[in-house]
Amino acid sequence: MSGVKIALDAMGGDSGPETVIAGIARAHHRWPDARFVAYGDEARVRPCLEQHPELESCVEFVHTADVIGDEDKPMQAVRRGQNSSMGLAIQAVKKGHVQVAVSAGNTGALMALSKIMLRTMEGIDRPALATLIPTVKGESVMLDLGANVEASEENLVQFAVMGAAYARAVLGLERPRVGLLNVGVEELKGHSIVKNAGAILRNTDLAMEFAGYVEGNGLSSGEVDVIVTDGFTGNVAIKTAEGTVKLIRSLLRDELIKSWVNKIAYLMVKGSLKSLGKHLDPNNHNGGVFLGLNGLIVKSHGNASDKGIATAIGVAIDMARNDLTTLIAEDLRNSGEIEKTIEKENTTETKTAAASE
Amino acid sequence: MSGVKIALDAMGGDSGPETVIAGIARAHHRWPDARFVAYGDEARVRPCLEQHPELESCVEFVHTADVIGDEDKPMQAVRRGQNSSMGLAIQAVKKGHVQVAVSAGNTGALMALSKIMLRTMEGIDRPALATLIPTVKGESVMLDLGANVEASEENLVQFAVMGAAYARAVLGLERPRVGLLNVGVEELKGHSIVKNAGAILRNTDLAMEFAGYVEGNGLSSGEVDVIVTDGFTGNVAIKTAEGTVKLIRSLLRDELIKSWVNKIAYLMVKGSLKSLGKHLDPNNHNGGVFLGLNGLIVKSHGNASDKGIATAIGVAIDMARNDLTTLIAEDLRNSGEIEKTIEKENTTETKTAAASE
Repeated sequence: MSGVKIALDAMGGDSGPETVIAGIARAHHRWPDARFVAYGDEARVRPCLEQHPELESCVEFVHTADVIGDEDKPMQAVRRGQNSSMGLAIQAVKKGHVQVAVSAGNTGALMALSKIMLRTMEGIDRPALATLIPTVKGESVMLDLGANVEASEENLVQFAVMGAAYARAVLGLERPRVGLLNVGVEELKGHSIVKNAGAILRNTDLAMEFAGYVEGNGLSSGEVDVIVTDGFTGNVAIKTAEGTVKLIRSLLRDELIKSWVNKIAYLMVKGSLKSLGKHLDPNNHNGGVFLGLNGLIVKSHGNASDKGIATAIGVAIDMARNDLTTLIAEDLRNSGEIEKTIEKENTTETKTAAASE
Repeated sequence: MSGVKIALDAMGGDSGPETVIAGIARAHHRWPDARFVAYGDEARVRPCLEQHPELESCVEFVHTADVIGDEDKPMQAVRRGQNSSMGLAIQAVKKGHVQVAVSAGNTGALMALSKIMLRTMEGIDRPALATLIPTVKGESVMLDLGANVEASEENLVQFAVMGAAYARAVLGLERPRVGLLNVGVEELKGHSIVKNAGAILRNTDLAMEFAGYVEGNGLSSGEVDVIVTDGFTGNVAIKTAEGTVKLIRSLLRDELIKSWVNKIAYLMVKGSLKSLGKHLDPNNHNGGVFLGLNGLIVKSHGNASDKGIATAIGVAIDMARNDLTTLIAEDLRNSGEIEKTIEKENTTETKTAAASE
């Protein structure tokens, strides 16, 4: 368990280098063994580093004036972003200078740059963004959260394999239960892509237990360990859940200041509500992992606080220690028959669909 | 404001006639002017009606042995369901015997049967399922919630027009703010369907204010009055929100029984928490409306309680009193230029996309 070395895009995120460096400081306090390489604009990053003299021994700083903005399109990032703070952080992973990179920058750009620089693993067509989400029972893995706004049935099956590997590594489960997000639990529900993916997962022997379809409420019920969906639906769903937490918090606050009795009661349970808030705080579940690349990349929320950045760094350390890339590669090798099954299933599905019209 | 007449599919819903009839009894108590026609299997419905002698004067009962099950495919429903309790309720709307029908049965079957029996309005290709959702500011309209698992850009634009008409009728807004659900708020975000729909809505003069894209958290923030999306995403998002409410409730309960101090505090705020729960309880927002048909159909949650059924009946009464079908037809007439705009936009979009590659 010796120190992991982590590259950081110091310019990424809504609040810039101040928050990223403060996040490193938090992470350093928690994981004193970890070492960091921070990439960014000297004029902006250096003053932040000077605020944290304790980081001198564990943070190496590399200057670059290039920055990828939130408005930059993925294609622009690929063309002009290789020398940006984000590009250099990914480069460090590729060259083996660090085990993992963390960025709170533009998701589309990070995805495109990571894909072009690290390449996808053999057997994976598209990487996916995965994260841990809070449930009634603890935590589940969810993917894709927006790396791809569209996904084919083959993509969804690959997401399932990668998500299961991630759950085995991070949640310590031997045979994770995997569910496919859909509009109903019956086999006939959903559009053709999700139905075809369901058919393949039902009929293929993989290192997981396929639990069938789950509906939106399955995100928080904990009925499965891994929730698989396309990036559009996944992104909307996870932001809907975050919004709902905010809504309830706002309503609860309004109720608890309505009367003196309520105010006193609120003071009595304040500590408990705080610990409840902690379980639901996105900053405590921050750190999406790009799965399926030849290298580890962690995406932090753009609006993460320094606490959120530290959480993302924690995820990065966890990934590196578990050697997730090797884990996924093994699972893919062990399920080498997927592709053939897909072809078979597709033919069957098309026939069935035609017959039932 | 004289009595509205409502057809009820007494066999629909997870808990059957008992709940539907108890729901009518609740509704009768609240809207004593309303009259009902209940369709279902005499052997099962009659005993329930006998439990509520107060309904004798306002409920007409029509026997049918045919029932549409939860497992029935939409196509089966269309072929064999015309004489079912659901089919007869829709028929009553078509023949003008009632102003609106309510069913808690199979959504896909209700959609398919309604579409084939009532036909879509001129200018609408596909109906959509809309409902009111609780927000920080009050309530918003959301559609589609699962009537169509896929939607084209033209469908999304039509959903926007119908959703705006619904918001004007139910929320009393003159110029509702309409948002398109997406994975980001920037114009370049999302897949081609949502981007094309966004371009059309930005450039067409409609009876609404197009507020651009909203992300998942926009469901509860109340930043727009109408949220437009395809039925797959909408269904997942609304069920995710419901699941999150359940998750927080469960966590809150766990916290509040942890110590004696917390238990006492809980007793002090119990009433307030109840009123908060009421605002979020799906049974208080029950009643999805199929928009875009030549007739009013309200879909209740399958697992609605009698309170939920009564809420759905309330929505039905509201729709009928506001004559929603006429309202939407007027809005469609006033925006007769949409289709042409769509063609223009599509061409422009394709060119732009090609140019930016």
